[in-house]
Amino acid sequence: MKRKSLAIDMDGVIADVEAHALQIYYERFGKLWTKEDASGKPEKDLLPDGYFRKFVLEPGFFRSAPVMDGAVEALQKLQEHYDIYIVSAAMEFPLSLPEKYDWMTEHFPFISWRNLVFCGDKSIISTDFMIDDHPKNLDHFSGQSIIFSSFHNFDINRYPRINNWEEGLILLTNPLSPLLI
Amino acid sequence: MKRKSLAIDMDGVIADVEAHALQIYYERFGKLWTKEDASGKPEKDLLPDGYFRKFVLEPGFFRSAPVMDGAVEALQKLQEHYDIYIVSAAMEFPLSLPEKYDWMTEHFPFISWRNLVFCGDKSIISTDFMIDDHPKNLDHFSGQSIIFSSFHNFDINRYPRINNWEEGLILLTNPLSPLLI
Repeated sequence: MKRKSLAIDMDGVIADVEAHALQIYYERFGKLWTKEDASGKPEKDLLPDGYFRKFVLEPGFFRSAPVMDGAVEALQKLQEHYDIYIVSAAMEFPLSLPEKYDWMTEHFPFISWRNLVFCGDKSIISTDFMIDDHPKNLDHFSGQSIIFSSFHNFDINRYPRINNWEEGLILLTNPLSPLLI
Repeated sequence: MKRKSLAIDMDGVIADVEAHALQIYYERFGKLWTKEDASGKPEKDLLPDGYFRKFVLEPGFFRSAPVMDGAVEALQKLQEHYDIYIVSAAMEFPLSLPEKYDWMTEHFPFISWRNLVFCGDKSIISTDFMIDDHPKNLDHFSGQSIIFSSFHNFDINRYPRINNWEEGLILLTNPLSPLLI
């Protein structure tokens, strides 16, 4: 049987860019800010005064982002079942292109460069499943969309939701998962 | 009516990387080599002694490649009819990522970064049409494939062929075109 294909977003899904930005804000200004403080706001308002956008544009930001908890182990196991493609809307930040490539090579060496996609609009990506934190990427997707929880998407209820990678692994590999029956 | 989508390859289709490599070879070694000399060989053997591959890996190679004859005018006209996506298998050469982005911004400023895709394998790209010089990219494509002539693909006859951008424009816009009837 042909293996199913699975597109996985980077930022906010396997790269914890939000935690990274909060940490930089704390180190630079001594003010503690949390994902809970930003809950329900659009992504650009993670931090006050547009600082999230400012940090994202700084060289090195994406290269030094931490890996999302459990992502490496989950993707290793998912790769036994699926053809995994990492699909990032990286084109908005051209400086990030080599940084994201190097980041993948360091943290996910088991994913080939053949399975990396850097794009703008994700509407021409066609796989069986897509995991993303942004509804705008999931809304025009022709396969099964799965939303990955983030401070900016908790009110979206039109897609199956995973709150972390443990849940993702269960949803996509457990034979009793509603997506697989 | 929803506009049709059209994926267009970069190297060998809108960027004349072959002519570029032949020119560098001539400037560096004083030997004239032509696309006809390489006719029928695989792409990597455009130049003797693996020089094509060596040039491609040099910083600046993609940034300074010339635009394929007629490509700018053709894409401007095609954009009146199609949603154009530039899809490049750039991931094999990570150094080329920012170079290709800057090249597009310089030569095709009318194509948004939203419509750029840098990938490895093109098998998850889904558009209505795809123009490419490599059969490996066209073979697993679910839409209508169109092959763009190159020294390395003249013996492929399983796809409609365009020899240049004038022919491409006719094939994709003339109401009497066999692809559009």
